[in-house]
Amino acid sequence: MQSSTKHALFPFVEPESVAIVGASASPGKAGYELLRNLLANEYRGKIYPVNPKASEILGLRVYPTVADLPGGIDVGLVILPAEGTVAAVRGLAAKGIRNQVLLAGGFAELDEAGARIQQELIDIIRETGIRVLGPNTSGHISTPHCFTSAFFPLGKIRRGSVSVVAQTGNFATHTMKHILTHEYFGVCRVLGIGNKIDIDESDALEFLAGDPETTAIVMYLESFKRPRHFLEIARAVTRVKPVVLLKGATSAAGKQAAVAHTAAMASQDRLVDAMLRQAGIVRVWKYSHLILAVKALSMVCLPKGNRVSFLAPSGAMLVALTDFCMGQGLVVPAVSPQTVARLQEISPAYLPMRNPVDIWGAASTKGVEFAYREGMEAVLKDANIDAVVPVLMLARETGVPPSYEFIPELVRRYPDKPVLVSFSAAKECEEECKALLEARGVPTFPEIEQPFEALSILVQCRQAMNRLQASAVG
Amino acid sequence: MQSSTKHALFPFVEPESVAIVGASASPGKAGYELLRNLLANEYRGKIYPVNPKASEILGLRVYPTVADLPGGIDVGLVILPAEGTVAAVRGLAAKGIRNQVLLAGGFAELDEAGARIQQELIDIIRETGIRVLGPNTSGHISTPHCFTSAFFPLGKIRRGSVSVVAQTGNFATHTMKHILTHEYFGVCRVLGIGNKIDIDESDALEFLAGDPETTAIVMYLESFKRPRHFLEIARAVTRVKPVVLLKGATSAAGKQAAVAHTAAMASQDRLVDAMLRQAGIVRVWKYSHLILAVKALSMVCLPKGNRVSFLAPSGAMLVALTDFCMGQGLVVPAVSPQTVARLQEISPAYLPMRNPVDIWGAASTKGVEFAYREGMEAVLKDANIDAVVPVLMLARETGVPPSYEFIPELVRRYPDKPVLVSFSAAKECEEECKALLEARGVPTFPEIEQPFEALSILVQCRQAMNRLQASAVG
Repeated sequence: MQSSTKHALFPFVEPESVAIVGASASPGKAGYELLRNLLANEYRGKIYPVNPKASEILGLRVYPTVADLPGGIDVGLVILPAEGTVAAVRGLAAKGIRNQVLLAGGFAELDEAGARIQQELIDIIRETGIRVLGPNTSGHISTPHCFTSAFFPLGKIRRGSVSVVAQTGNFATHTMKHILTHEYFGVCRVLGIGNKIDIDESDALEFLAGDPETTAIVMYLESFKRPRHFLEIARAVTRVKPVVLLKGATSAAGKQAAVAHTAAMASQDRLVDAMLRQAGIVRVWKYSHLILAVKALSMVCLPKGNRVSFLAPSGAMLVALTDFCMGQGLVVPAVSPQTVARLQEISPAYLPMRNPVDIWGAASTKGVEFAYREGMEAVLKDANIDAVVPVLMLARETGVPPSYEFIPELVRRYPDKPVLVSFSAAKECEEECKALLEARGVPTFPEIEQPFEALSILVQCRQAMNRLQASAVG
Repeated sequence: MQSSTKHALFPFVEPESVAIVGASASPGKAGYELLRNLLANEYRGKIYPVNPKASEILGLRVYPTVADLPGGIDVGLVILPAEGTVAAVRGLAAKGIRNQVLLAGGFAELDEAGARIQQELIDIIRETGIRVLGPNTSGHISTPHCFTSAFFPLGKIRRGSVSVVAQTGNFATHTMKHILTHEYFGVCRVLGIGNKIDIDESDALEFLAGDPETTAIVMYLESFKRPRHFLEIARAVTRVKPVVLLKGATSAAGKQAAVAHTAAMASQDRLVDAMLRQAGIVRVWKYSHLILAVKALSMVCLPKGNRVSFLAPSGAMLVALTDFCMGQGLVVPAVSPQTVARLQEISPAYLPMRNPVDIWGAASTKGVEFAYREGMEAVLKDANIDAVVPVLMLARETGVPPSYEFIPELVRRYPDKPVLVSFSAAKECEEECKALLEARGVPTFPEIEQPFEALSILVQCRQAMNRLQASAVG
């Protein structure tokens, strides 16, 4: 795999200097919020704002025109209306700034006039050999380098190990805000590819494949610019890193919606499904599962297989979740006689124990912490089990553990087995537990089916990896 | 349909007096918490605790034995271990207390000895003609009568219009706690049928069919005691009231889990599926969708059809949600030229508007409240649209409405069209909005697909109702 430092995308995600054409002194304007994001993330490179009317913004010296910039700047961000973009791009190219992010919309996704401007940009790229991310992107994020071109006010963006390629502006705007405020995990690189007139999903995937900071890749795409090339790269990546994709515009109606917001035509879904699978790409079917996938891939390892054990305080949950697992490609196998014996030991003698584990008896006679700690350890130890989901019963009235430390402690002791937590709980207990566990790296999910949906994605990633590795050897 | 006041279940849900055998003076014990629940719910009938060792509990006079009770008590709650239940049941029957709830577990669901006790109870029922709810139930709830036999510490239970029949103790314990702490809606009757040695799901459905307080019925069942009778009742009910069912133990593995926790055998899923559909029952497939169904049926009307409009701030969301709707039996139709014209009026001129509605342009140029208010009204007015889902973009940095009152106001003006809200938002904005809207009767859902899952359930209920009404006429 290509070294990521030599890849065309490298200067975009790890630039040592950045020019911002369209920097603004007005709070609320994109060209101001972009600068605020750079400062909030403590970007350590040099920042060159360009604005003919201001001499200083947020303590940074401002350059009146592109022509006034010094040479040797790694990347240029252009945050101007479509009409102004062409001149800025030419100017930056003339200054030797060969990597550019075009942040405004108003191009082919909009109308004929925008399409003409876009064509002009494509011609400039061909003439000059510059590399372009966008246009019509809400920017990109690179937490390992404390860098971003995102103009949505995000503040400090938490660092994580999963990277995202998004053919949508929402991921670097409200979806990222959602993640930063609801969740505890962070992100690695987020690449909003926009109208992808130059850099496309294949380039992004190729770069992330070789990126040592990226352990897994989650994508939202509505079209493939170079499908064959993309699949070829994917086949190589998915042997070593999970790739999860939400393919938008799979239905006829969805396609129509897609035409309204991106210039690229939606692909025929049926035709690509088998090819994606062959390339080891795992598909999800909900926008919210993009977040679920990033969370799961960020916070737990891939399970070795699809054999799950879960502990819940209700027979109906055991039944309904077992049914649900079947539909998710998970199995809920019998555990070993030793495991059964241990579960029996912690439970009232009359309750016959098995997998899934009815933890009610143990929890109500010996306390919630004891029951879940001992029950979880029993199934984590079992060679028949690849992953464990405790559905915690938490209500002050029926007992809450004095500390939740036993869960991260178990995770440390059984590092090969993902543990995903859910709740049957009072709200205040659930929020407290989420905060304590997620700060310690253990993911929690508010709805009891979500850990299994997340596990299903992880299991499919593992299976794809095994399949691709086997076919590479064979 | 039978008048509910004459139904055998009526004295269970609207008793004027109640005896509690196994009342306890020890906080934390089930026999104490049950009394606390009764008092917290301000039950207005007479309460007769029975306990040989206490003379007063929670300010209530205590009767040493069943024999000491006065005559004419409507219902007896027995909260004793299985071994003590038989004598209590006989004693209550001898006192003329013909309606009894048996709250302890330890019967056929447990072991051979328990099965023998259960058989003894069945014999007593046959001999005496008493009616029994349970055993192995966590109790029942009847908010219109401020009554409950639930022993899980719940406090005041909010009143609602949807009733629940649950072959699981979890609904009246942790799941109810979850609803009371996470949600704003309440419940009407909750009937935990337990091992259903006498009163079963058919009785429960029949009673709720005629119950004027109940507008819709949500069920969790693992087996059918009298399938033919059940379906016959269902066919009549679903003409006038929606019935939603999660059938547990549909997979072979789920069946095995079911055997471990209920005495009743799981039914063959494939065989019953078509019959359920014929009877107008709408199935759900997740435990969490029991809560989703109660919420949706409690808070909005049934839509007239499956034609949905939604407003979201991201092209990718429009595309992915349109795809998602297709899989949920919903359509996202074109809106009228007048609606398009109005949407165009509120949006930047260059953005071509349609259904689904890309609200980003309007929201970012004219403010979040204006955009959503005018956009929602445009599609609510449209005769092609049966239901509306706004996905609210809420972040302090990009604007939050000064008040959310415009949404309940729109709901009041278009009472035939369900409005279900979701978010692409910062956490604090989302929580504030949820609190304000749900207190005013407008449901919100944290994940953007959930309003569509809820709508799908409602649409299926409407379709079943139409189908059954047509076949009744024909």
